[in-house]
Amino acid sequence: MNANLLIAQGGGPTAVINCSLYGVIRQAQANGKVHSVLGACHGITGVLNEQFIDLGAQEEAVIEGLKSTPGAALGSCRHKVKGSDCPQILEVLNQHEIRYFLYNGGNDSMDTALQLHRLAQRDRYDLKVIGIPKTVDNDLPETDRCPGYGSAARYVAQSVRDLGMDIRSLPTPVSIFEAMGRNAGWLAAASALARRAPDDAPHLIYLPERVFNPDQLLADVQRVYERLGWVVVVVSEGIKLANGAPVYAHGGEAQTDDFGHALPGDVGSYLANLLSTELGLRSRSEKPGLCARSSIELASAVDQQDAEAVGRAAVDAARAGESGVTVTLLPRTSADETPRTGLTPLEQTANKEKLVPENWITSSGNNVTDEFCAYVRPLIGKELMEYVRF
Amino acid sequence: MNANLLIAQGGGPTAVINCSLYGVIRQAQANGKVHSVLGACHGITGVLNEQFIDLGAQEEAVIEGLKSTPGAALGSCRHKVKGSDCPQILEVLNQHEIRYFLYNGGNDSMDTALQLHRLAQRDRYDLKVIGIPKTVDNDLPETDRCPGYGSAARYVAQSVRDLGMDIRSLPTPVSIFEAMGRNAGWLAAASALARRAPDDAPHLIYLPERVFNPDQLLADVQRVYERLGWVVVVVSEGIKLANGAPVYAHGGEAQTDDFGHALPGDVGSYLANLLSTELGLRSRSEKPGLCARSSIELASAVDQQDAEAVGRAAVDAARAGESGVTVTLLPRTSADETPRTGLTPLEQTANKEKLVPENWITSSGNNVTDEFCAYVRPLIGKELMEYVRF
Repeated sequence: MNANLLIAQGGGPTAVINCSLYGVIRQAQANGKVHSVLGACHGITGVLNEQFIDLGAQEEAVIEGLKSTPGAALGSCRHKVKGSDCPQILEVLNQHEIRYFLYNGGNDSMDTALQLHRLAQRDRYDLKVIGIPKTVDNDLPETDRCPGYGSAARYVAQSVRDLGMDIRSLPTPVSIFEAMGRNAGWLAAASALARRAPDDAPHLIYLPERVFNPDQLLADVQRVYERLGWVVVVVSEGIKLANGAPVYAHGGEAQTDDFGHALPGDVGSYLANLLSTELGLRSRSEKPGLCARSSIELASAVDQQDAEAVGRAAVDAARAGESGVTVTLLPRTSADETPRTGLTPLEQTANKEKLVPENWITSSGNNVTDEFCAYVRPLIGKELMEYVRF
Repeated sequence: MNANLLIAQGGGPTAVINCSLYGVIRQAQANGKVHSVLGACHGITGVLNEQFIDLGAQEEAVIEGLKSTPGAALGSCRHKVKGSDCPQILEVLNQHEIRYFLYNGGNDSMDTALQLHRLAQRDRYDLKVIGIPKTVDNDLPETDRCPGYGSAARYVAQSVRDLGMDIRSLPTPVSIFEAMGRNAGWLAAASALARRAPDDAPHLIYLPERVFNPDQLLADVQRVYERLGWVVVVVSEGIKLANGAPVYAHGGEAQTDDFGHALPGDVGSYLANLLSTELGLRSRSEKPGLCARSSIELASAVDQQDAEAVGRAAVDAARAGESGVTVTLLPRTSADETPRTGLTPLEQTANKEKLVPENWITSSGNNVTDEFCAYVRPLIGKELMEYVRF
C-alpha cells in the first residue's frame, strides 16, 4: 500500500502561499517514503469532489515558478466542513491511499483540519493531519507570525510611505488608507514602518482592537492638520463602534461569507466623506484591498522563506508520525537566521484569533508602539524604498 | 543682469514628476547661460508667496535621488490663477531676475502657463514660458503620451494581473478594480496588458468615453461568471450614466476641487454592492487610488526616461528663445530609442483633454482593442511579472 500525501489550500490567498506549497512538494520529493504528492483543487471541496493534481508530475519550471506566483495555485475555498461531509472525505482519502493530509490555511482551515484529524482517529484510519499556517491577517495564535503577513505588511508600509510623499505635496490634505483586517489590526499597524521621521505618514492608525470613536477621529485629524497641513490616516477595514457595529456597515446590511463572517465594506471611503462634511477638509481614500496580498514585486523575502519553511516542516512532522498539530514559527533571534519552526495542537489555533496586544497600541488608541515596530520590522525583509526631500 | 530659471510643479503628482525636475536641473546646469535654477514651492502659489528653493545649491545625493522619489518634490498646487494674480506674479519673477519659467503639469497647469506667457508678452517682459507635460491620466493633446502615464499604467496592469491570480483561486468570484481617470479612460484601459490568455483578468473594462449602462454591466458580469466562475472588472473612477451623471455620485453630492471639477467617489464599491444585490454574486472592490501614481517599485523605466527627456527639452527650448509652448513626446519608432521630443503651442493643450480614441474601444464598449494594447505596451517598460499555473 502506498503512502500518498495530499496538500490543500484554504481561505484567502497570500503572496507566499505557494512558497509553502513549494516547500511541501520539495520536502516530500526529498523524502523517499512519500509515494505521490497530490494537491486538492479548491481546498476541502476538491477532496469532496476528488479533484486532485499530481504535483510530482508537474514540470520543474512550474514547481520553481510557484515561489513567485500569487493566488492559491491549487485554488482555495471557504467551504465550512459539515459533519455529514466527513465520512465522504475519509472515504476519498482512503481510496487515494492518502496517509498525510496537509491543510494550509487560517483559523477556519485549522478547524476543518481538526475535524478531519478527530474523525480519522475515531474511525482508526491511519491519517496524519498537519496544519500549515497562512494568513495576511497574522491572527493565528501560538505562532510568532503567519506566513503571508510579512509580505502584505511590506506592501502596506511601502504604499503608505509612497502615499505620504504624494499627499504631503498636494493641497488635497487628507487621505484614509484602508488596510485589510476584520478583527485584528496587524496589517494596519504595519503601516507605522512607513515613517522615518515623527511627522511622516501615517499620522494616525486605528485598529479594530480598540473601540472606534468618530469624534476622536475628527479631533485627531483636525489637530494633525493644523500642525502639518496634511494628514494620512490608516484604518483597519474592520474597526467597530462602541456598540460593536462595524463602521463599514454604517447602518446598511453587510454581505456575509459561508462562515457567517460579515464581509467588510468601504470604511475608508465612508470616513473620508465624514471628514469632508464635518471638518470641511477635502479628503479621499485608498483601498488596495486584495492587491496587498497578491503583489510579488512588493513581497518580503523573509516571509517567502518562512512560508517555504512551514511547508517543509509540515512534511517532516507528518512523516515523524505527528497528527492534529499545526506548524508554528518561533520568534526570530537574529536578522539572518533560518526560520525555526515548532508544532502546536490544532485545538490551540482552530477558530481562535490573536489580536494585536493591548500594550502594543498607544494609550491614545491612534498609534502603535516602538515594541510593535521592533516586532514587525524584520518580517518585511529588505528596507523600504528611501526618498529624498529638499 | 542674471538670467535665472524657475521651475514649478502643478496638479497631481506622478511617479516620475521628479524625473522631469531632475532633467531640468541637469540640463540647466549643463547650460552655462542659466545663472540660477530655482524651484517654486507648491506651484504657482510659491511664486505668489516668493517661496523658492535654490535647486543648484542642493546636495548631489538629493538631486540624484529625485529620479526615484514620488510625490512632487517642490510641492504642487491646484490654484487657479486669477487675472488679479498676474501682475504680482510678473513682479516677483522680475524681482528674482527670472527669464525662464517652466511649468510641469497637466491641463490646468498649461492654462496657467499660457496666461503667464500672454501677460509677459503684453507687458513686454522678457520671459520664456515653457510647459512640461505630466499626468497619469494621459489626457494631454498633441503629445504621443504623458510622462507619469506609463508608470501608473504599469502599476494598474501588474496589479490587475496579481488580483486576477487571487480572485481566480477563490470563491469570492467578483472584484471591481477602480482606476483613476475622471474623463479619460487611459489608465483603466491599460489593465488590458494584464492578460496573457483570452480568459485572463480583466474580463471587462469600462471607460468614461462610453456611456455606462448598469444593466449592461449586470448582463456582462453574469455572462462571464457563467462561463468562468470568476470575474475581474476594471472601471475608470469617472464612468458616467446616460444623463451625464457620474456613477460615483449615485444621487449624492460630490466634493469639487478649486477648478470646479467633481472629485470622484468610490464607484467600484458602489458597483460591487450592485452586483451583490442584483446578481447574488459575492463581490468586492479594490481601489489603489493615489498608490498607483506614487509607487517607484512598480514604475516604468521608459516613463522615467520620457520624464527626464521632457525636462531637458524644456530647458533647451527656453534657451533657444521659445515661449508659450509645451514640450511633447513624439511616437516611438523602436523599443530602445531615446525619447524624441517636439514643441506645440500652449493653446493646443491648455484645458483640452485627449480621450481614448473611439476605435480603440470595442464596439461592445466593455473592452479595448489590440491597437490600444500595441500603443501602451512599450510605455510600461519591462515585461510584467509572469506566473505559473497547473
